[in-house]
Amino acid sequence: MSAPMQRVALIGFGSVGRAFARLLLRKHEEIRQRYALDIRVTGILTARRGAAWDPEGLDLAAALTIAESGGDLSALSPSPAPAEAIAFIERCPADVVVEITVLNPHTGQPATDHVRAALRSGRHVVTANKGPLAFAYRELRELARSRGRAFLFESTVMDGAPLFSLVREGLPATRIRGFRAILNSTTNFILTRMEEGIPFEEAVREAQTIGIAEADPSNDIDGWDAAVKTCVLANVWMEADLRPDRVERTGIRGIRPEDVADARREGRRIKLVCTAERTDDGEVRARVAPEAVSMEDLLAHVRGTSSAISLRTDTLKQLTLIEHEPEPAQTAFGLLADLLHVARGHWE
Amino acid sequence: MSAPMQRVALIGFGSVGRAFARLLLRKHEEIRQRYALDIRVTGILTARRGAAWDPEGLDLAAALTIAESGGDLSALSPSPAPAEAIAFIERCPADVVVEITVLNPHTGQPATDHVRAALRSGRHVVTANKGPLAFAYRELRELARSRGRAFLFESTVMDGAPLFSLVREGLPATRIRGFRAILNSTTNFILTRMEEGIPFEEAVREAQTIGIAEADPSNDIDGWDAAVKTCVLANVWMEADLRPDRVERTGIRGIRPEDVADARREGRRIKLVCTAERTDDGEVRARVAPEAVSMEDLLAHVRGTSSAISLRTDTLKQLTLIEHEPEPAQTAFGLLADLLHVARGHWE
Repeated sequence: MSAPMQRVALIGFGSVGRAFARLLLRKHEEIRQRYALDIRVTGILTARRGAAWDPEGLDLAAALTIAESGGDLSALSPSPAPAEAIAFIERCPADVVVEITVLNPHTGQPATDHVRAALRSGRHVVTANKGPLAFAYRELRELARSRGRAFLFESTVMDGAPLFSLVREGLPATRIRGFRAILNSTTNFILTRMEEGIPFEEAVREAQTIGIAEADPSNDIDGWDAAVKTCVLANVWMEADLRPDRVERTGIRGIRPEDVADARREGRRIKLVCTAERTDDGEVRARVAPEAVSMEDLLAHVRGTSSAISLRTDTLKQLTLIEHEPEPAQTAFGLLADLLHVARGHWE
Repeated sequence: MSAPMQRVALIGFGSVGRAFARLLLRKHEEIRQRYALDIRVTGILTARRGAAWDPEGLDLAAALTIAESGGDLSALSPSPAPAEAIAFIERCPADVVVEITVLNPHTGQPATDHVRAALRSGRHVVTANKGPLAFAYRELRELARSRGRAFLFESTVMDGAPLFSLVREGLPATRIRGFRAILNSTTNFILTRMEEGIPFEEAVREAQTIGIAEADPSNDIDGWDAAVKTCVLANVWMEADLRPDRVERTGIRGIRPEDVADARREGRRIKLVCTAERTDDGEVRARVAPEAVSMEDLLAHVRGTSSAISLRTDTLKQLTLIEHEPEPAQTAFGLLADLLHVARGHWE
């Protein structure tokens, strides 16, 4: 049986892109059977490994082999594909553009330009990049609506955990009044290790060793990543129009072992907590700061690299979603879930 | 602006039905604006307060007043409506039948007959009744599919928390490998009180006083309610074809204060845990039993009347959803969410 084709272009082919390719290879037949959909990657653009496109679909297994052996993807392309991103996006034979380039978290670029170009050229967009959401959500949402295209971003917060779809589909006709969350894996890991008696600097080095912290860990430790995610959630769910620098932000650099021990003695744990709430004047106040969380609060029990969010709503009182120890494969799953939302028309 | 109408018949008008009516009155205009949908209750059938129908929609505020003052709803009906359920379901002017009668948990009746009649007469069905799911899920699912109608049941497990929609929408192309859950509020409340030093019998009386336990509490205490819910989840998610009496079941009647104290000394809490897993031979094994849960396990921190479920999947490793201290309004919300899934065509 031939199933309708969904043609997908990947802008970026780093660890998330490759995890997505592996996931699609594993799930392709199951998706064809269950959703009568034939998802094909018809374009891949990389910064340093060339570009390839093929309207019939690229050989993903071959693309993985080339990318992992340091080769050039253009060998897979029946005709030359542009190396420049906007030209590639505008001309690629794809229904959906998946934006997964490396992000500058302080500008949201180049991802925002990529998303804008993709929507303007009539593509649906799926992205794992927080930048376009934190810096240009309203503009991009309106652009997508005006073109009748999807703009989905499940993998931007809590990896691929179905957070946005939970609210969009599971909580219809509901207003989000506020949330409390642990959204940065690296700081939660460091704080968990500090409770176990490991000094801050050593916990940071451990996080670097297992690959969850950068060589310069300040983006996580100073709360920037958490602030960007808090900003995204407030903008998408609470009609806020914040930017990351408008989120009140305190990182964990000042947390000393004795602070962790003092909290522990009081039956509390220090967590980097992200909050958003609507103030009496209707504004949304968003904040990232270390808090000594009571053991009665579920957030106290979210350990290591796990994440959690607790929503307050006007229909269900409170609902909490927890993701346990994510891997790149989970971010890849968020992309796949979004592609299926696009195919099923479940995006508003 | 006139929005398309969704005509809804309520079979049953007890506490959940009345909470639904209040929720719809509160949300009607918001839903009309946001989803361009005009949800109208065009039929209400009760066991002891008569029946009413009106293809233009009944006055819900008036229906609430009558039901709460012990009057007869037939006063609201422009033409006489049948008092007999199957006749009412077959003939009512409704697109969706909402089944919320009082259930016999050992037979699944009369809800199962109501659902079957509604689907056969071409209606979509939304139900808060676990019986049809535990006793006749496969038959009813196939019947709904063959008629191209929705059969949705968000409110059957964890009240209105978006559990089924989380899996259906948020976890596409995913296999549920198993779950661990706390699904019965009454026993979780009793166990929480026992930890606080209250004897079992007194904790049961407290649960009765606050209205979460029946005069005969055995359905909860002996694990029947939890077994029925476990059976529903295994049947819907894991292609099992269980019945409640095939779920291995131990209740909490045998739990003594010293068991709770012993667990506590070992840093554990006793919880009535529902589990399902696929065995090596492909069968689904489902079980309800008290367990001394480690404090490292999030389930240990689900207190009072809250519920939680932790899913293991083949895409996201593990995902946990927690509902905090539900009320009838939350069950009502699950019904409303399902009606919106029907209207948006988001049901497969």
